[in-house]
Amino acid sequence: MRITVLSGGVGGARFVSGVREWARRDAAAQSLAEDAAHDIRVVVNTGDDWWLAGLRIAPDHDSLLYSLSGQNDTERGWGRREETERVAAELQAWGVTPSWFTLGDLDLGVHIARTAWLRAGVPLSEVYRRLGERWPLGATLIPATEDEVDTHVHTTDGQRMHFQEWWTRHRAGIPAVRFENAGIETAQPSPEALEAIADADVVLIAPSNPVVSIGPILGIPGLRDAVRATSAPVVGVAPVIGGRVVRGMADACLTAIGVETDAAAIARHYAARGADGVLDGWLLAEEDAASVDGLTQDGILTRAVPLWMRDADTSAALAGNAIALARDVR
Amino acid sequence: MRITVLSGGVGGARFVSGVREWARRDAAAQSLAEDAAHDIRVVVNTGDDWWLAGLRIAPDHDSLLYSLSGQNDTERGWGRREETERVAAELQAWGVTPSWFTLGDLDLGVHIARTAWLRAGVPLSEVYRRLGERWPLGATLIPATEDEVDTHVHTTDGQRMHFQEWWTRHRAGIPAVRFENAGIETAQPSPEALEAIADADVVLIAPSNPVVSIGPILGIPGLRDAVRATSAPVVGVAPVIGGRVVRGMADACLTAIGVETDAAAIARHYAARGADGVLDGWLLAEEDAASVDGLTQDGILTRAVPLWMRDADTSAALAGNAIALARDVR
Repeated sequence: MRITVLSGGVGGARFVSGVREWARRDAAAQSLAEDAAHDIRVVVNTGDDWWLAGLRIAPDHDSLLYSLSGQNDTERGWGRREETERVAAELQAWGVTPSWFTLGDLDLGVHIARTAWLRAGVPLSEVYRRLGERWPLGATLIPATEDEVDTHVHTTDGQRMHFQEWWTRHRAGIPAVRFENAGIETAQPSPEALEAIADADVVLIAPSNPVVSIGPILGIPGLRDAVRATSAPVVGVAPVIGGRVVRGMADACLTAIGVETDAAAIARHYAARGADGVLDGWLLAEEDAASVDGLTQDGILTRAVPLWMRDADTSAALAGNAIALARDVR
Repeated sequence: MRITVLSGGVGGARFVSGVREWARRDAAAQSLAEDAAHDIRVVVNTGDDWWLAGLRIAPDHDSLLYSLSGQNDTERGWGRREETERVAAELQAWGVTPSWFTLGDLDLGVHIARTAWLRAGVPLSEVYRRLGERWPLGATLIPATEDEVDTHVHTTDGQRMHFQEWWTRHRAGIPAVRFENAGIETAQPSPEALEAIADADVVLIAPSNPVVSIGPILGIPGLRDAVRATSAPVVGVAPVIGGRVVRGMADACLTAIGVETDAAAIARHYAARGADGVLDGWLLAEEDAASVDGLTQDGILTRAVPLWMRDADTSAALAGNAIALARDVR
């Protein structure tokens, strides 16, 4: 099965790991080689990429890379395991990085390699391919766009800052008025992303931040249309459980765009394909099952399942439930 | 006294440290503040700079920076002390640096900061100034030129490679036919370098590699003319002792341009100002005193002195001898 996932960073990475685990188990159950049974492609958000110290940082891509390769720091929840910060202290001493954003030593290797390739004119999708060659990932990472569409935040106190500054420095503590993806109007979806959406057997929207992770993917002109046009069923997974965000500070983003931190409200934000939206199905937590009825009227097939991804088993089960729902959409 | 030194990397750094030490002692002897007594400016070779892994590497500048700041690894003879190579292993794993050139972790901080500033459009002389602010150097480092004039080597086996590859990878083991500073014909001396030469009280040429360290400085159109035109006496220090190069593999460079590894031959290569050259005086080792007579006929005032820079005392004494010779030129 050709499975395409639209994904942000850490939360998305956990979901994609679940999809990969489900695919492995399903292949084993069918006595098929892993590759022969399923092909997993991930359309990755590039909206929270940014330039720092002359280096191109790509948090969502790298979270996926580190998670899928097993290089991630599971205790800290982000970055590389066995990380050190020797260069980071130098960069701060030279004044080229702020005190609130640290680039780990192992992590810097990726940033330097990516930047070197980009500066040499290598397309971002090829950069992803090269970075994906070092460890077996079991999935192909694809940039949503080759263009720079970095997210900026307009805050209630009249500031405009890069998303990373708002998110990491201010912990999303200054209320946001709106999010701006500079240049997104003229950005183009990457051909690989369009292909992954068009020829998929199922398209899944990871339980990532709907505003700053999935939003900048669907906001690229043509990409939302591609999701609306694909013959594959499109199933989203709610990023909230019991009316609370699963991780991060997504609620601060939702509030800014006037969407409640609520599974049904987010589904209505994505909207049904039959009503100018992108969803055929919506997987939400059992705690939020009460919202199901209204969504079905809206044309979104919903199902309440256990949504916590605690380990390989629960993540694979969630992925399996998403794929089962996709099959039932038909 | 305004002392301007033309300098390459490690050997030049040792000489500049000697000049600084001499200046300190001289100021103390005169009961003057260090700054009030002497102003040391160093016109730095940029010919062995290069791009590696998308980063701008400047070996001669950094050797001077680390030496003058006391951050240098005195045991190894190059780079930062207490250096580690954690990122280097990553860069090799990503395939963006070759196995024969390692960028240390602390060292990388400088490369990243320099590259970030250059990419942001900061002039190289301002980059030098920023890098020179962190530690008290007791000297001002000035790029010979703002332009990229990286040295390439044409070898007898028909290859053309960056100087760093020839020097570091091949240990200068493939005979060189010629050295090419790509773009030097249209390069311009930095205004700060021209000023440092024009308004100096004495100009010293460090015992650096005459071909690939001093050569690319004097090769910048207008810079050699500035040295020839300055009202200050110009004194060079021989980079050979007893017919052998003091450090590095300068003999391989000299051979390639048809100059003997010999103190008198190198002085004739630089040539007297009265004969279309740049030298008024030439300091050479006592071991090479036999060559002195001929040079005097050529119009270069020479003096044989102890040339080994073993420590602060011997380096300061050498610098003092260079300045004394400059005074006697008049």
